[in-house]
Amino acid sequence: MKDDYIDVEKVLGHEFEPVNFTYGDREVILYALGIGAATDPIDPKELAFTYEGSSLGFKAFPTFAVTFPFGMSLRLMSMEGLQFNPMMLLHGEQYLEIEQPLPTAARVTSRGRISQIYDKGGGALFIIDSTSEDESGQTIAINQSSIFIRGIGGFGGERGPSTSHVNLSPEREPDAVHEEHVPANQALLYRLSGDRNPLHAEPAMAAMGGFDRPILHGLCTFGYAGRAVLKHFADNDPDRFKSIRTRFARHFFPGETLVTEMWDEGEGAILFRCKVAERDEIVISNAKVELRI
Amino acid sequence: MKDDYIDVEKVLGHEFEPVNFTYGDREVILYALGIGAATDPIDPKELAFTYEGSSLGFKAFPTFAVTFPFGMSLRLMSMEGLQFNPMMLLHGEQYLEIEQPLPTAARVTSRGRISQIYDKGGGALFIIDSTSEDESGQTIAINQSSIFIRGIGGFGGERGPSTSHVNLSPEREPDAVHEEHVPANQALLYRLSGDRNPLHAEPAMAAMGGFDRPILHGLCTFGYAGRAVLKHFADNDPDRFKSIRTRFARHFFPGETLVTEMWDEGEGAILFRCKVAERDEIVISNAKVELRI
Repeated sequence: MKDDYIDVEKVLGHEFEPVNFTYGDREVILYALGIGAATDPIDPKELAFTYEGSSLGFKAFPTFAVTFPFGMSLRLMSMEGLQFNPMMLLHGEQYLEIEQPLPTAARVTSRGRISQIYDKGGGALFIIDSTSEDESGQTIAINQSSIFIRGIGGFGGERGPSTSHVNLSPEREPDAVHEEHVPANQALLYRLSGDRNPLHAEPAMAAMGGFDRPILHGLCTFGYAGRAVLKHFADNDPDRFKSIRTRFARHFFPGETLVTEMWDEGEGAILFRCKVAERDEIVISNAKVELRI
Repeated sequence: MKDDYIDVEKVLGHEFEPVNFTYGDREVILYALGIGAATDPIDPKELAFTYEGSSLGFKAFPTFAVTFPFGMSLRLMSMEGLQFNPMMLLHGEQYLEIEQPLPTAARVTSRGRISQIYDKGGGALFIIDSTSEDESGQTIAINQSSIFIRGIGGFGGERGPSTSHVNLSPEREPDAVHEEHVPANQALLYRLSGDRNPLHAEPAMAAMGGFDRPILHGLCTFGYAGRAVLKHFADNDPDRFKSIRTRFARHFFPGETLVTEMWDEGEGAILFRCKVAERDEIVISNAKVELRI
């Protein structure tokens, strides 16, 4: 087995082949259930994300758009100039901006590139920027993912900006707190929406990554948090969802309880963070949703 | 709107167009999660039904085979000689026999017919028999479904045999009891495996059917019960699953707790019944799994 390495000159600026993703109600519902939607399926506003015949009109949950460019981070695993153990890959941060309410069925094309690579010493941080368009060429969503790969840092690159000071949680008590138990088999459901990294399913693979057991996808926790914010501050209206930014501070195990603390900063800005109830540790930090007002 | 009616001469003996179903790991996993599998995803035997890379070898849960001929009962809704409100349709009984361990990916063709129609007074009971074959023409599974349609009985037909005396639960204490909470949104997940009858999703439709809220699919409860038996009496080995027979005695609401009581009658015969913990009512009765010994 070859040693892990990175050839920054080859990798930085790399433009990915466009990723095409065709979806329908099945994918929209599967994603929504994957992020725990419809815990109260009698509530028509919750049912709207998980039932194609909804009386309010079927809607795609906005964070579904993070799955559009998903193929790109997969392709990191088979790129020239880059070699690493997939169990060493962790999602660092995610920004998503919704430009148009998501269709409930579409053929979406995502174009993106590796726009930055930072040297964090213990690993390399990849910034992947992408835009996703519908069939007519209209931009639906913009994603920025920070992917951290442990073990291939120290190549002499820039350390990059610190994001630990952005979107800090206020000192005051949260304006809303949402607590939700995440079922033990949730990662097995979420992975059907595209991210089949065995880190989230196979105990032996999780152990290779240094975890006691498989961890939940950062983007699944992200979806749970997005649901909490939309429910508490926008009456579950997906058209009000403008953007979301999160930092994945720590792993979360399926079967634990996620606590989302939220602060309304006015003008549609909702700061939030997520904790694990059982461990009192923060799993999502430096996070904000912007709502259309 | 036309009145509901049945023209028995036109409908009895009807052979359905063959139903083709192509599936892969996505459908196999989705079905398994739809019947609540992998509540303990660290147990490799449970993980084997829900993870395509399982260290024990990925397996399809045997009751997945009830979905193969699913299109047939849907076609009842658009048959000449038959007119009814879909909310009046209830699943009465189900028999499934597994002839070959199910492939984890296949193209299956199911052929079936309406072999009996009984007049139960308040409604008509349809017996649909089908066989499902793989690409090579080998029979994988045999299904028999009894479908009860309320409101179109009294056409002067035979009442048919009573099944209330078969597979009665013994007087003695059960040899095993399995209790499992069914999540409130479980029907929304199960329906992605094919049965999208709005009775299981839309409160207004459930009300038309006479229910306070959407009910779980009988075949979903059936899958939960199959999991309970295979876990307690066959160490989760799907190759030992030979057949299952159930009677759907009453509706079950998602969000309730299903209690499966099981009796080992020897020679691989496991009698069982399912209750709702919260209501102490029986939802599956007259039921048996036969295991290969």
